Amino acid sequence: RLDRERFVATMKEQAEIGATDGGGLHRLTLSDDDKEIRDWFAVQMEEEGLDIRIDEFGNMFGRREGTDPDAKPVLVGSHLDSQPYGGIYDGALGVIGALELIRTLNDEDVETTHPVEIVNWTNEEGSRFQPAMQGSGVWAGAHSLEEEYAKTDADGKVFEEELDRIGYRGDVPAEPQEAYEAYLELHVEQGPYLEENGKEVGVVTGIVGFTWGAVTFYGEADHSGPTPMHYRKDALVAAADVITQIRRIPSTLGERTVGTTGYVDVKPNSINIIPDEVTFTWGFRDPSDDVIEEAYQRVLQEAEWAAEREGIDWEWEERMRAPAVEFADQCVDAVQSAADALELDSMRIFSGAGHDATHMHSVCDTGMVFAPSENGKSHNESEYTSWDDCYAAASTLANAAVTLAGG
Amino acid sequence: RLDRERFVATMKEQAEIGATDGGGLHRLTLSDDDKEIRDWFAVQMEEEGLDIRIDEFGNMFGRREGTDPDAKPVLVGSHLDSQPYGGIYDGALGVIGALELIRTLNDEDVETTHPVEIVNWTNEEGSRFQPAMQGSGVWAGAHSLEEEYAKTDADGKVFEEELDRIGYRGDVPAEPQEAYEAYLELHVEQGPYLEENGKEVGVVTGIVGFTWGAVTFYGEADHSGPTPMHYRKDALVAAADVITQIRRIPSTLGERTVGTTGYVDVKPNSINIIPDEVTFTWGFRDPSDDVIEEAYQRVLQEAEWAAEREGIDWEWEERMRAPAVEFADQCVDAVQSAADALELDSMRIFSGAGHDATHMHSVCDTGMVFAPSENGKSHNESEYTSWDDCYAAASTLANAAVTLAGG
Ligand SMILES: NC(=O)NCCC(=O)O
Ligand SMILES: NC(=O)NCCC(=O)O
Repeated sequence: RLDRERFVATMKEQAEIGATDGGGLHRLTLSDDDKEIRDWFAVQMEEEGLDIRIDEFGNMFGRREGTDPDAKPVLVGSHLDSQPYGGIYDGALGVIGALELIRTLNDEDVETTHPVEIVNWTNEEGSRFQPAMQGSGVWAGAHSLEEEYAKTDADGKVFEEELDRIGYRGDVPAEPQEAYEAYLELHVEQGPYLEENGKEVGVVTGIVGFTWGAVTFYGEADHSGPTPMHYRKDALVAAADVITQIRRIPSTLGERTVGTTGYVDVKPNSINIIPDEVTFTWGFRDPSDDVIEEAYQRVLQEAEWAAEREGIDWEWEERMRAPAVEFADQCVDAVQSAADALELDSMRIFSGAGHDATHMHSVCDTGMVFAPSENGKSHNESEYTSWDDCYAAASTLANAAVTLAGG
Repeated sequence: RLDRERFVATMKEQAEIGATDGGGLHRLTLSDDDKEIRDWFAVQMEEEGLDIRIDEFGNMFGRREGTDPDAKPVLVGSHLDSQPYGGIYDGALGVIGALELIRTLNDEDVETTHPVEIVNWTNEEGSRFQPAMQGSGVWAGAHSLEEEYAKTDADGKVFEEELDRIGYRGDVPAEPQEAYEAYLELHVEQGPYLEENGKEVGVVTGIVGFTWGAVTFYGEADHSGPTPMHYRKDALVAAADVITQIRRIPSTLGERTVGTTGYVDVKPNSINIIPDEVTFTWGFRDPSDDVIEEAYQRVLQEAEWAAEREGIDWEWEERMRAPAVEFADQCVDAVQSAADALELDSMRIFSGAGHDATHMHSVCDTGMVFAPSENGKSHNESEYTSWDDCYAAASTLANAAVTLAGG
């Protein structure tokens, strides 16, 4: 059993770094606040006597040895970066849950057959740099290190330079150094289903697939007054057309399909200039990879039609494609058994958010635990999960991990 | 007759301050570049022996006395601020035309009955701070000085502080110190009509009316993945709906009605967050004030419907309303006679852009001269008017001004 008081105190402590006035977190990946939370996390791992490794992509690992030198490690963790003006649970809950697991094993002198490693993945959020789940994606071999190093944020800052700047480009290759037994991750649900069903904990069975990308329309800047309507080549009118279709496409596909535009950049962005360059993003998710492909084709078709109507050029870039994954029975069962042993009211649930577990699925057996999100709200300062629910889910994670690690 | 070589050289000289790599100007009002062009303009006026006044809103005047102490001054000018990545003619042509008029009167020792004043108005463009034609609007009494001082740009910088910062808050009250005989302004057309009709110069008969404003939708930030479509309160979807209607409304009103969204701000602007606050602008123009009122009502109606569909709050602010104006016969006739005397091929034209002349109309008889704009293009670095056309229009201005000033 975890120490509830220490667990809650540690959750509150981490939430001070990058805290916003609105009670949330603004701890963007590779920012100064990200450096500070990483420094803090390294100290916590040192105090527990873990063997710390930082890999060349900034992923941070801490290892506690097992009794059997041949047994493969069980990896447990999540991420400490946040969304812009996001919540204090998203990511952090999974890392602090993993840290509390280690502290409890140490306090109670528990030996495990398998080594236990905990991890803080770099840039899970995918807000400042795309794609999301970038650190785990590089580590699992889904992305090339060099391509991800070269990514730039909206201000043109380069990932690799920002990683160097905060001093977290480590020496260890960003790839598994050995085979892994299992990966477990605790996270807030970020959706409404656990709450709607009155459940205390979610036994996650898989994660939706994604397509993320951006379209840019190139119109012609001109004066908004004397330019007759039929002369205009307005990049924003084309973008607005497609944004309204991104809202509409999901209702024509699957029950769980979602589609969103979260980012828009308008140039030159002056009240009396017809916009000449507008970039906006799409994001579609669904449990079926076929539906994802269909949504992707549809948004490109809509963009082509909008560009034709306006008589302008356009280009696009897919920034992320992740297949839907279904978790391994070994992990789902371990989570279910842990929830049952703790007498928690649980349900099976499919994740609508992406997680580092998406990529870990290709490395080893993978599973997840969800804590309920009040009103399903996240990526918002008012994201909320009660300490009771956080503690119940962290306890489920710890018990499942100990089962898998043979303790 | 103006000195063509000196006139072209002066146009090129002014275009160096705030020059962009693309051959345009980025000389936003109250920026460091605006300070530099103002300093330069003050030196030019001093060299001509003009009596310089800077008013408390930063409007810059230079006066050349007339022979009759009771004759009211004729005011000639335009503005030296530019759009973001705008052209080198918009505004500057009218100020340099006025300066060349003074230089020529001095060179040729011409005495005029009326005093001649030249002027550089503050913030004509209305891009950084709204409304456009702000300096002339304050001076003509259309706006209160205190309200305009308090305006802020997109970064929250306050007009009054920026005016102080560049050292151009003068001592003279921002209002006419005496009655004026007439106001004349030379400008590039910024629309396609002179070129389409093969004319060398435009005799402007009036200016369209405007409504400018901004709508803000307040949705709820949430995760773009696990949040089901029917839970969403997406401020951007509502904004996109209205932006597409702003493109559509003009075709249902008048032949010359135009409608534009030039500016959009999305918060938090992250690929995987449902936007919770989106502000965008509207701008409608038409020669009829009734059509302007109708467009204004329609855009608010569309915003209300969009907010209802999305189940979100909204607010709006009208940032500018200018009535359509028709110029005084005295001025239109003076411009027409000057064009005819110079044997230029001219036509009557109604301005689709706003100009400081809009406000001067309420102070004294007002008129304008237009030079053709290649492809009607402006508010763009590639804005272009040939030196021949610039010179022909400046000559028309000078001759019309001398007629009105009794020279
Ligand atoms: N869990 C989470 O918020 N991940 C960020 C990537 C995504 O948008 O799903
Ligand atoms: N002439 C000109 O570009 N004025 C700026 C205000 C407007 O948009 O009409």
